[in-house]
Amino acid sequence: MPSENEFVAALLATLPADPRLEVPAGDDAAVLRPPALRRTVITVDMLMEGIDFVLGPDCSPWLVGHKALAVSLSDLAAMGSRPETVVVAVALPRAEAVTLGRELQAGIAALAAAHGVALAGGDTNTWDGPLVISTTAIGSVAPGNAWRRDRARPGDLVVASGAFGGSLLGRHLAVVPRCREAAAIAAGFTVHAAIDVSDGLALDVGRMMEASGTAVVLDLRAVPIHPDAIRAAATAAGRTPLDHALGDGEDFELVLTMPPEEAHRLVASCGSPPFDTPFTIIGEVVAGQGLFARTADGGRRPLPRTGYQHAIADGP
Amino acid sequence: MPSENEFVAALLATLPADPRLEVPAGDDAAVLRPPALRRTVITVDMLMEGIDFVLGPDCSPWLVGHKALAVSLSDLAAMGSRPETVVVAVALPRAEAVTLGRELQAGIAALAAAHGVALAGGDTNTWDGPLVISTTAIGSVAPGNAWRRDRARPGDLVVASGAFGGSLLGRHLAVVPRCREAAAIAAGFTVHAAIDVSDGLALDVGRMMEASGTAVVLDLRAVPIHPDAIRAAATAAGRTPLDHALGDGEDFELVLTMPPEEAHRLVASCGSPPFDTPFTIIGEVVAGQGLFARTADGGRRPLPRTGYQHAIADGP
Repeated sequence: MPSENEFVAALLATLPADPRLEVPAGDDAAVLRPPALRRTVITVDMLMEGIDFVLGPDCSPWLVGHKALAVSLSDLAAMGSRPETVVVAVALPRAEAVTLGRELQAGIAALAAAHGVALAGGDTNTWDGPLVISTTAIGSVAPGNAWRRDRARPGDLVVASGAFGGSLLGRHLAVVPRCREAAAIAAGFTVHAAIDVSDGLALDVGRMMEASGTAVVLDLRAVPIHPDAIRAAATAAGRTPLDHALGDGEDFELVLTMPPEEAHRLVASCGSPPFDTPFTIIGEVVAGQGLFARTADGGRRPLPRTGYQHAIADGP
Repeated sequence: MPSENEFVAALLATLPADPRLEVPAGDDAAVLRPPALRRTVITVDMLMEGIDFVLGPDCSPWLVGHKALAVSLSDLAAMGSRPETVVVAVALPRAEAVTLGRELQAGIAALAAAHGVALAGGDTNTWDGPLVISTTAIGSVAPGNAWRRDRARPGDLVVASGAFGGSLLGRHLAVVPRCREAAAIAAGFTVHAAIDVSDGLALDVGRMMEASGTAVVLDLRAVPIHPDAIRAAATAAGRTPLDHALGDGEDFELVLTMPPEEAHRLVASCGSPPFDTPFTIIGEVVAGQGLFARTADGGRRPLPRTGYQHAIADGP
């Protein structure tokens, strides 16, 4: 039974050296060399056992570590920023702390390596409660170039990566953050506003519109429906594949608003690297406020902001 | 009963504007303007209900928020860095989420304001588990100037701020991070190595020596003993006030190693601002390895590395 000291030292020993770290993990804090003339982008996410995942045959600790970092990298992608470093804090159930800690870190390290992200440190704790993991990811972006959610403009087209719906069938654990796509788009296209879809396409697009003081008309026939959404609709009555695509969430796809000519150029670029990921025009930003669907006669009807939104309770 | 969206919006509305935030909290990530020609320092801590605190008459959520940020700021101080920003992730027990979330943020905001720290964002979650809070603090330091724990040199004197022991009587909830002291020392003195005492004076000094490949001889008569250590020793038999000072931990005082003339100059500066906090020479770094106490005849004897160190278990 190792001490926490020995366990953490063993974890630290697996971290590769990285020139961005002037002082690497293992001290009171890490010291980063930020890229010259870049802004620092920071995001934090917490995943809790029983809420965001249920450990079992279909969900290993490795996948939980991978997802924890993926969710944060998806946020960095949605800012048009380049991922640089990550720090991780965990509360490990005492009885399996060593195995859990090692597998979590392996899942994090695999995704970090794939995206050139340096692990800069962490805080490892044990308790008798469920597994909790908090990831703080740091990215960089040129001054003034971050993609904000509150800069959509009437006349923009709404462009989405990938396809939507049914992620709870398993895809939500194998999140592919759209970092490479974001980097390529940031380098070559004009983007007015962006968000990543975590809580549901309708809800998150609604948030972007609300923040921007604009409205949107979605072309529901154009919304890319994931095969998982069709499977999900087939296994439970009452919701169509489109309902799942609009409301399920945990898709971790990018939604961008762009000037029309830029949107068309981006969609036309698909099929050649790094645009193996399809991009689809799904609607148009208009003046006003609200979320609408285009009707067959070219008009619009209000669209419910479906998605995952917890009520926050307080004592009686 | 507000939605999570409304609750988070209400929390965000309380945050003051800060020129360091190019994009403030509320987007997918925050964008920071890092100080020109400075390094970025990053540290993360997680506090768990039942392990790090027990909510009750003596421990309000406000104090938990305050402590969570204080612990991270203490790490930034121990790097000789200036605190800049913080992001916070919380798992709130569902039944009291609103009250807990507001009070936690108020405790964080009070300490953040006192130290000029900008709140750059967070992740607010609810569940049926205990309260968990994770703080990631960002600081800045001139290139090459971070105080590392692995740079102690034989001949250095060991200098400690404040006094040690008995913090569990309540002081551990009212942590005063030594940020101002660190800033003044970084600006005016040569520091070779530094650490903050979280797990115990003996244990943390031992860690600094191990990292530096050096040994230390502590003058136990010089170790500043907090009145709480005397109270703690009086209420439970078997441990002296010195035992408490060496092993209790959660003091969050700075321990520095410095060239002798610098150490004497620092101690002599005490009594005038910002050095209301006393600094005391408690020992000397020597060649070799290990932790020793000076004996009456001028020799040395091994000193146990007492402190708080969890064993990490794994399933049978």
